[in-house]
Amino acid sequence: MSLPRRYWEDLRSGDGGESPAITPTREDIISFAIDYDPQPFHLDEEAAKQSLFGGLAASGWHTASLTFALLREHALPGVAWVNNLGFNDLRWKRPVKPDIPLRVRYSWGEMLPETGNPGTGQATLDVQVLEGDGEVAMEMSLLIEVERRPLEG
Amino acid sequence: MSLPRRYWEDLRSGDGGESPAITPTREDIISFAIDYDPQPFHLDEEAAKQSLFGGLAASGWHTASLTFALLREHALPGVAWVNNLGFNDLRWKRPVKPDIPLRVRYSWGEMLPETGNPGTGQATLDVQVLEGDGEVAMEMSLLIEVERRPLEG
Repeated sequence: MSLPRRYWEDLRSGDGGESPAITPTREDIISFAIDYDPQPFHLDEEAAKQSLFGGLAASGWHTASLTFALLREHALPGVAWVNNLGFNDLRWKRPVKPDIPLRVRYSWGEMLPETGNPGTGQATLDVQVLEGDGEVAMEMSLLIEVERRPLEG
Repeated sequence: MSLPRRYWEDLRSGDGGESPAITPTREDIISFAIDYDPQPFHLDEEAAKQSLFGGLAASGWHTASLTFALLREHALPGVAWVNNLGFNDLRWKRPVKPDIPLRVRYSWGEMLPETGNPGTGQATLDVQVLEGDGEVAMEMSLLIEVERRPLEG
């Protein structure tokens, strides 16, 4: 069974949902940091205890990458997605610690009928990353380009 | 020789610079994508040729992570950096292809004297990621928390 294809016209501001949780481990956090953000509080528990995070914390870029992975698996299937255009108003609000489940809550926001490319519209997906206790760890608005519904031929 | 410590009061809107280049390889692009953004046009040259990118392209989160790595090495040393708060207006404007040098051009933008935390101010770093030919591949404004100059005791 394939999902019905959702074009730009089918997305409704206010509709949304929540993903299952993903739980980055200590090893995941350190591995990302070694390659992309080698700062002491992302690499080493002892150094992190002395930092403002009070313990090992994920790189914010790691959290952002995991967030998009959850959206791609849970919010975007069936959507006639063409491209990510960017995002607005990303804020890291709490450190992401190892072994804490993270899930994303998302809802469609502002919709613009044109992108500058023929046959596509712009959709905004407003996203919050929630920790196990429901506290917001990160938030952002993702801007995507979505196919417009083809005219009946 | 250590750099003089630059507090919030020392940062001037309009000041900036440009980093040396970094050149992600095909292997770098695929390795990031396997772990964090496994979409065909980030993983496989043949699949990517059929996509709107016309060839293998880096995950936008990979580009963002590399951008921050360049800023951390070249724009932020000496700055009394406390924390990244988030960023605004990130746009991916061109696909990032393998073996193309990327560099960042940055300038300090809006400065706000308070962050809600005592003794710190907010600084904005306006950033463009440039390809070899000077075309802009990505842009964003990074918001950071910076220590205020301590009062003379």
